[in-house]
Amino acid sequence: MTLRVRDLDESGLLARFVPLLPTGAATLVGPGDDAAVVAAPDGRYVVSTDVLVQDFHFRRHWSTGYDVGVRAAAQNLADVAAMGGRPTALVVGLAMPADLEVTWVEEFARGLADACETTGAAVVGGDLSGGSVLMVSVAVHGDLGGRPPVLRSGARPGDVVAHAGVRGFSAAGFALLDAGVAEPSAGAPGAEGALAPYVAGFLRPAPPLDAGPAAGAGGATAMLDVSDGLLRDAGRVATASGVDIDLDAEALEPYAAALATAADALAPVADAPGRGAGRALEWVLSGGEDHGLLATFPPGAALPDGFRRIGTVRAPAGAPRVTLDGAEPAVGPGWDHFRA
Amino acid sequence: MTLRVRDLDESGLLARFVPLLPTGAATLVGPGDDAAVVAAPDGRYVVSTDVLVQDFHFRRHWSTGYDVGVRAAAQNLADVAAMGGRPTALVVGLAMPADLEVTWVEEFARGLADACETTGAAVVGGDLSGGSVLMVSVAVHGDLGGRPPVLRSGARPGDVVAHAGVRGFSAAGFALLDAGVAEPSAGAPGAEGALAPYVAGFLRPAPPLDAGPAAGAGGATAMLDVSDGLLRDAGRVATASGVDIDLDAEALEPYAAALATAADALAPVADAPGRGAGRALEWVLSGGEDHGLLATFPPGAALPDGFRRIGTVRAPAGAPRVTLDGAEPAVGPGWDHFRA
Repeated sequence: MTLRVRDLDESGLLARFVPLLPTGAATLVGPGDDAAVVAAPDGRYVVSTDVLVQDFHFRRHWSTGYDVGVRAAAQNLADVAAMGGRPTALVVGLAMPADLEVTWVEEFARGLADACETTGAAVVGGDLSGGSVLMVSVAVHGDLGGRPPVLRSGARPGDVVAHAGVRGFSAAGFALLDAGVAEPSAGAPGAEGALAPYVAGFLRPAPPLDAGPAAGAGGATAMLDVSDGLLRDAGRVATASGVDIDLDAEALEPYAAALATAADALAPVADAPGRGAGRALEWVLSGGEDHGLLATFPPGAALPDGFRRIGTVRAPAGAPRVTLDGAEPAVGPGWDHFRA
Repeated sequence: MTLRVRDLDESGLLARFVPLLPTGAATLVGPGDDAAVVAAPDGRYVVSTDVLVQDFHFRRHWSTGYDVGVRAAAQNLADVAAMGGRPTALVVGLAMPADLEVTWVEEFARGLADACETTGAAVVGGDLSGGSVLMVSVAVHGDLGGRPPVLRSGARPGDVVAHAGVRGFSAAGFALLDAGVAEPSAGAPGAEGALAPYVAGFLRPAPPLDAGPAAGAGGATAMLDVSDGLLRDAGRVATASGVDIDLDAEALEPYAAALATAADALAPVADAPGRGAGRALEWVLSGGEDHGLLATFPPGAALPDGFRRIGTVRAPAGAPRVTLDGAEPAVGPGWDHFRA
């Protein structure tokens, strides 16, 4: 018989959940009291939060508990990296239906642990609650190592625009699943096959977490986590900094080339507007949720490991905007949670 | 025409929401970037999280957006107080249906602000998301002022057991609403009338936040936020500390007397088992969500302002337990989110 959440009381569920969570050196008081206590060695900490809701951010029949755990941690960890910080601690809220399998909760904890494994970040507390649908909230904390945070507002004309991480893999993976061209199992951990990187990239994004503090140490003038698409998020840097950001189409070609296999697999069903030959570039420019890092560096600065030059910061002609080879890009600006 | 969440994009909603949020002196970088930066002057911070889900923790037809904002903040702020800390920063996740009125979101922000007003705590970041039901998650942060955190595990035989805050008001208010003896409007801000304190206590709990750091400074050996009922939460201190906690029935009488008006109002419908004359005492012992503070102090210590002696810590005879005048209490141990 399948063990379900309703078969356990809160302490029974916690007894299965807590031992699976990641631990870390910054934890002074961990789970089990009213609150945790975390070290903040330079007298400050970075904090951000992200919420994932079933049917809005993930689908039960696509994502396993493990996938949701990895994704919830990864997109939060990326926010710390985008400030130039190293993650230290997460607190996790989980609302769940009473008929949820207990193994889902355990796999969710394993996903959190694997996403945190190389970072040193711990889950230091949380809240398990009933709910009519699955809902995950994570608040993430990080350490700036004594450096100033890298904000969105520091880009200056002449700066180099650079990117770390993949582009469009999550969008491609979603498109493959949505079209039925790939099954979720094609992206399971350890799965091989031509479409595995895309499906896995959608189910379990892997942000370039080390690139964030490297950029901070390397003099980045602005940085953000690309969660809503390159054009849209570059626009946020442009607006916050009061500059234009001109992307270099040639520099984006390797990103599009990395998506060719997914685009080819979708070609037979690629009859909708904006699909077809331009699909890979559209994923590069507008695909969200890869959680790569977009950063600007002073002219001539050596780019830290993991970053690739993709454009230039320019003085704005009018309202700050994002251009592609100096012209208005011919694709949409990304997506919005309330309208999509 | 009523403005609804779906009528605005994310930036439009944020433009209405963010200016209403509380600000505070510990905020180094506030809302608007990938993450906030918060001061942690003694090189540590306290962190906790709580989730509120529609139909599990609040009902739309009982609680306004303002009520939910106050309650979400208050129950989190209480967790910081229960460690002996002062709250500094909150991050807030809000998942909401597309047809939610925008005024609900604005009132929610005002509730957060009012609950934080006397504390100095700011909302430094958050995440607005779509959802099929309303769901609120808050992570709260606090400063220990250089003192050790007050854990649940430090109670020692001979210590005085003390309590700060009200007991049973939330349970009484719930019972009044549930029985239809009072309407939610009876507990609206500024409402007068005999039942107002109970209904307001359920809709908008007001934890004794100053009593937490006062207890820490006053030598408290153990402390926790009473969220699930006095017996159940005293049991947590007993278990964590390896002691018995003996409550003094006479010392609890003033708490029961404060509930007499609510018990009287419910008398005509008080025919269920465990109701009737013992109802007020049951609320005192088992009612949850008032978010009072239960603390233990060394024998002879002066109790800080707001605390009242309610019992004694004893060496355990067997497994740690909670007694009432030395005997097993004759009421249930509280409630469980997954079974209630």
